[in-house]
Amino acid sequence: MSTAISPLAPTDVPDMPVIAGVRLATAAAGIRYKGRTDVLLALLDKGTTVAGVFTRSKCPSAAVDWCRAKLKGGQARALVVNSGNANAFTGKTGKQATTLTAAIAAKATGSSPDNIFLASTGVIGEPLDATKFNGVLDDLALRAVPEGWLDAARAIMTTDTFPKVATATVRLGKAKVTINGMAKGAGMIAPDMATMLSFVFTDAPLSASVLQSLLKTGVADTFNAVTIDGDTSTSDTLLAFATGAAKDAPKISRASDPRLKAFAKAFHGVLANLAEQVARDGEGARKLIEITVEGATSNASARRIAMSIANSPLVKTAVAGEDANWGRVVMAVGKAGEPADRDKLSISFNGIRVAHRGARDPSYDEAEVSKLMKQQTIRIKVGLGLGKGRDRVLTCDLTKEYVAINGDYRS
Amino acid sequence: MSTAISPLAPTDVPDMPVIAGVRLATAAAGIRYKGRTDVLLALLDKGTTVAGVFTRSKCPSAAVDWCRAKLKGGQARALVVNSGNANAFTGKTGKQATTLTAAIAAKATGSSPDNIFLASTGVIGEPLDATKFNGVLDDLALRAVPEGWLDAARAIMTTDTFPKVATATVRLGKAKVTINGMAKGAGMIAPDMATMLSFVFTDAPLSASVLQSLLKTGVADTFNAVTIDGDTSTSDTLLAFATGAAKDAPKISRASDPRLKAFAKAFHGVLANLAEQVARDGEGARKLIEITVEGATSNASARRIAMSIANSPLVKTAVAGEDANWGRVVMAVGKAGEPADRDKLSISFNGIRVAHRGARDPSYDEAEVSKLMKQQTIRIKVGLGLGKGRDRVLTCDLTKEYVAINGDYRS
Repeated sequence: MSTAISPLAPTDVPDMPVIAGVRLATAAAGIRYKGRTDVLLALLDKGTTVAGVFTRSKCPSAAVDWCRAKLKGGQARALVVNSGNANAFTGKTGKQATTLTAAIAAKATGSSPDNIFLASTGVIGEPLDATKFNGVLDDLALRAVPEGWLDAARAIMTTDTFPKVATATVRLGKAKVTINGMAKGAGMIAPDMATMLSFVFTDAPLSASVLQSLLKTGVADTFNAVTIDGDTSTSDTLLAFATGAAKDAPKISRASDPRLKAFAKAFHGVLANLAEQVARDGEGARKLIEITVEGATSNASARRIAMSIANSPLVKTAVAGEDANWGRVVMAVGKAGEPADRDKLSISFNGIRVAHRGARDPSYDEAEVSKLMKQQTIRIKVGLGLGKGRDRVLTCDLTKEYVAINGDYRS
Repeated sequence: MSTAISPLAPTDVPDMPVIAGVRLATAAAGIRYKGRTDVLLALLDKGTTVAGVFTRSKCPSAAVDWCRAKLKGGQARALVVNSGNANAFTGKTGKQATTLTAAIAAKATGSSPDNIFLASTGVIGEPLDATKFNGVLDDLALRAVPEGWLDAARAIMTTDTFPKVATATVRLGKAKVTINGMAKGAGMIAPDMATMLSFVFTDAPLSASVLQSLLKTGVADTFNAVTIDGDTSTSDTLLAFATGAAKDAPKISRASDPRLKAFAKAFHGVLANLAEQVARDGEGARKLIEITVEGATSNASARRIAMSIANSPLVKTAVAGEDANWGRVVMAVGKAGEPADRDKLSISFNGIRVAHRGARDPSYDEAEVSKLMKQQTIRIKVGLGLGKGRDRVLTCDLTKEYVAINGDYRS
């Protein structure tokens, strides 16, 4: 497995501020990896609300089942995340493992199992030995501190090459509130919860329903607009926690509250930032690809065409080879099954129009395009010329390294 | 580009018999490749009927548009195929190129352009200079002979590593009739005309509608059940020609004619043989993967689940790495969006059940499975335990070679 950091990793890692009401600790429980942390405990003050969105897989992991059930209460006191084992497709054993993990965490944190949220990532189908959390979670609860966000992001990594964090500070009423997020991604990333795992925390006093509404709106053009390989994980989980501990902040219990506007924008910005980092750390990625589709008959149609391009192995290998092979983009538009008229289609790579009205643009200079294809970010824009539908998705190129990482992962 | 023959190539290449009423010739017209043939002309005797199925791409090639229009007449006198240039997304120039090619072919063969069928394969978006066929097609018409089927299959190759032919001889009434087929595939192979190009010829006297019916039934579990990379070409074309020149064979004008039964079976066998060869020559393929899904709620549901597995980069890279990573199969079942119950799922690799009722099969021996994963053909069987729906699809593994071939193709 590659240990080199993705060349697309952000160069500036933000200083992560503390969030009142959140404390973190990590440990090396030896679940799968040697010599690195693999468990994260986030302690949440009493009164913390929670919301979540999950994989649409028909075979979700035991942890996803657990969170979905516990979300109904809307209250959280702790989050336990492990990497190395997804606890997915582990049958009754898997369910027992979630129950046992939550029981250990509840005891360690002095709360009810109903307020414990769980996420697991890693290999599918191997039983997760939850007894390994015995003692470990007690120790973590004692050690938890408001700092250490980057360490937390590191503990949840699998094939990620860098930890992913983002932060924003914004006014809510007259108070200053903070939003911190972390994510892990890398492979098995596809729409309908593209995240694998992401956790967002704020000290804003938001009801669980407001938080859920922010998440639902926020994922559409962020995590759900990212694809690495079209493969949807059984474990994709995005949880948001609001401790309400920010001083003098107004309590928000309606998503339509006008005071929420700036916060919602900042919250969305954190999700967008994390989602882009996931694309930037796609397995074996050497180039970030932004695909914009305009002029579709609807936004939904534009999304499907953009995803068809983003998931095309032929488009992705062409970008890896620094080849502006717009013929393959035409192919991917055509196979999407959405309304498209060959003779109205235009395509550009990094601002240079290479195809126009169903044929090669006579004015385009192959040498100029070839030069631009050496850039780290490739922007493919497709104009359909049919309507006002528009969408944008992010993906990365398909390299030999992807094949190497995924051919050797388990063995 | 790789020049090594796929390790999955069939070891026995059949002796291709002649088909009364069909004559073949090939030439090197220098359309794109150097030092190899790239044009095939098949001359068809008067009275030959024709049928076809094509890509469902919304951006089909000019040749596909041409064939669709000419199919209405049901009569064919010649087939012209070129490799190296797909004449797709070439706008008005592309349409003009088909008109000119057909005119040259009509003149060379003494027939009407309405009876000329065309197919082009290769790079998309580059104008096809049809004037290159001037003289070449006249010469081919003079040189055409009943032999040379393997040479014909070779002339239509692009990234294929071996020519693909198949033949069958069968009784129709009391007469002996023959079916010969050829195909080219390799990349951009996906359902809804997975073939890129395939041509089947028979001397049986079948009406165009009978031939169309045989094709439509025949592709469902052959060409449409093969996927290499989920990418659907703009040019996928399967044409069938029936010269009717077999001595003493009864004329068949209804698909329900009971005398057609043995013929239909043999015809289907030729399609299945060619489709499997396409999978065996998937770009960079080192292993043939057969995916069988049983116990789905319907055959259509089984097909969608099988295709979800067959198109999963994570499943395909795992097979390339000789890893029986059934967790990724679970993932692919889950992402298909079809009815599936995790706790009823069972999965086997080459006959060894590795997962049963939603968890790892306790009795399976990893070492034994690992040994079987070294075989050239990997059979993945998924039991859903929900109903009687069943399907089978073929694909190949995803290797670094695929990335190399497709990263370097155009440049």
